[in-house]
Amino acid sequence: MNGSGRLSEDQLIARYFAPFAGEGAFGLRDDAARITPRDGHEIVVTVDAIVSGIHFFPDDPASSVGRKALAVNVSDLAAKGARPLGFVLSLALPDDWRPAWLEEFAEGLHQAAMSFGCPLLGGDTVRANGPFWASVTAFGETPKGTMVHRFNAAAGDAVCVTGTIGDAALGLSLRKDPLSAWAQEMTLEKRVHLTDRYLHPQPRIALADVVRRHARAAMDISDGLAGDLAKMAKASGLTAEVDLASIPLSAAARLALEADPSRIDTIVTGGDDYELLCAVAPENLDEFSAEAAAAGVSAISIGRFCKGDSLPLFSDATGQKRYQVGSYTHF
Amino acid sequence: MNGSGRLSEDQLIARYFAPFAGEGAFGLRDDAARITPRDGHEIVVTVDAIVSGIHFFPDDPASSVGRKALAVNVSDLAAKGARPLGFVLSLALPDDWRPAWLEEFAEGLHQAAMSFGCPLLGGDTVRANGPFWASVTAFGETPKGTMVHRFNAAAGDAVCVTGTIGDAALGLSLRKDPLSAWAQEMTLEKRVHLTDRYLHPQPRIALADVVRRHARAAMDISDGLAGDLAKMAKASGLTAEVDLASIPLSAAARLALEADPSRIDTIVTGGDDYELLCAVAPENLDEFSAEAAAAGVSAISIGRFCKGDSLPLFSDATGQKRYQVGSYTHF
Repeated sequence: MNGSGRLSEDQLIARYFAPFAGEGAFGLRDDAARITPRDGHEIVVTVDAIVSGIHFFPDDPASSVGRKALAVNVSDLAAKGARPLGFVLSLALPDDWRPAWLEEFAEGLHQAAMSFGCPLLGGDTVRANGPFWASVTAFGETPKGTMVHRFNAAAGDAVCVTGTIGDAALGLSLRKDPLSAWAQEMTLEKRVHLTDRYLHPQPRIALADVVRRHARAAMDISDGLAGDLAKMAKASGLTAEVDLASIPLSAAARLALEADPSRIDTIVTGGDDYELLCAVAPENLDEFSAEAAAAGVSAISIGRFCKGDSLPLFSDATGQKRYQVGSYTHF
Repeated sequence: MNGSGRLSEDQLIARYFAPFAGEGAFGLRDDAARITPRDGHEIVVTVDAIVSGIHFFPDDPASSVGRKALAVNVSDLAAKGARPLGFVLSLALPDDWRPAWLEEFAEGLHQAAMSFGCPLLGGDTVRANGPFWASVTAFGETPKGTMVHRFNAAAGDAVCVTGTIGDAALGLSLRKDPLSAWAQEMTLEKRVHLTDRYLHPQPRIALADVVRRHARAAMDISDGLAGDLAKMAKASGLTAEVDLASIPLSAAARLALEADPSRIDTIVTGGDDYELLCAVAPENLDEFSAEAAAAGVSAISIGRFCKGDSLPLFSDATGQKRYQVGSYTHF
């Protein structure tokens, strides 16, 4: 190896990734991995990539990037009611990749894999003349036939969300403009909270069982509440109504909103929440919220699904609006 | 949509990919897919990416690129003794992507998925300022505990290969220099054969059961026979000896070799064969070859594994050599 990082792929794997390979990975010395679901269970699989300059800033901490690459996928598993089993990683390294950066990336990934109970099972690494690119395919298991879908919401179901909404989008605003007036008015603690929510999504693994028991439909909120609710409603052949005042906000987000009420749009349409959006039948709502609380995460109703095919309606005392899905989904 | 290809990701998926989604994909309308192995079976998972300018030429037919993205992964499954179940796709589209190219890519992938019995289960698509990048994670199933590994070869086992070796590497030479003297001396049919072997790898799915029944260790030959044999020998704590004259060659490769005997190095070290390399105990060799032939693919012994830790030795009447692994594996 020299200063520009000349390692064979085998050396690169052995140095950075083999230390946290799971049982079915055979030390990353084989061409494939093995996944053995428990009897009566099946596999849930999801894939999400993150790209430098699109899903993270080139100067975000590499360990945070590594953590996020896995977190966004484990978040999908939780939304489907699945327990994580492991993941495979496909990496494209830019021509100017630095060993120190990759080591830190791998360390963040390693910590996330341990924290999420989701070990590395295999991967592929190529060098390409483009941005750093990491695609994760993650596996979970559910009892057969119990995977929770995006498209099964029923008219009358409560629109439920976990945790708090909008923190990551506000954290991203802070990240882009740390010297803005509203940032200056906030305590350091609140600024750290928002930035941390952007950098370090918390996949709601603890809620996988609760979702499977009580949600008729579920998905994670990655592209903004408004856009993802529109997707769930459309997939279910419905629309939805949301009470803006009911959307759960952190103390920091509440302060940001008080400083500028128009910031509600950022909160509702910004991405990277990685909370869960669930359709819950009214008769299951109390149990759903109670069991989620017992698992350490709040989960509350903010509206309901109803018949219709328009975009979801968001209302407060001052009026109503329907959000167009953000342009970031366009190619 | 306009001329530069403005589609939402949902439209892009619905148009190009949903037509060949498998049963567990829920029409690609969910956030995850389901894989249900049969009772008593487990999942084998493999991941390989292909990048424009590295694994294929930007002007290779897009349908061939789509086919290859899946074929190189299904080849790994076959080498592990696994029957294909499906795959997920992670795509990075360059800023200047063209709908016509992507449509042709998807069509090649579609045909391959049908031909390999390996349906699309899900995916992720991002736009990135870099080369076209496609990463496939493919799933197969084997009866529990029967996955064939790379690292179990035993001293005395025969080194076996399927099909013919070196065609793709010669096809790549033709692709790079179609007007070279040796190319001109070949019939069109032979040139087409070699080029086709480079563009359209034939994963040996038909041999998965035979490999599982009779091979002690197996892997596919993707990085050249010499390099991959070195990997298998090293992983098994062994070395190997190969009789160069025994390596199975197509009529076209034989002609190319007669024109220039030094071309044996291209044949032995070139990549993209996507044949299988197997370690077979001497007492199983006859049955292995007979059952492979019955499945329509030749599989013969070209040498044997033996104790030692040097690189594999390749011998013919004129001498012996040990090949260094190609520099293409370096980062």
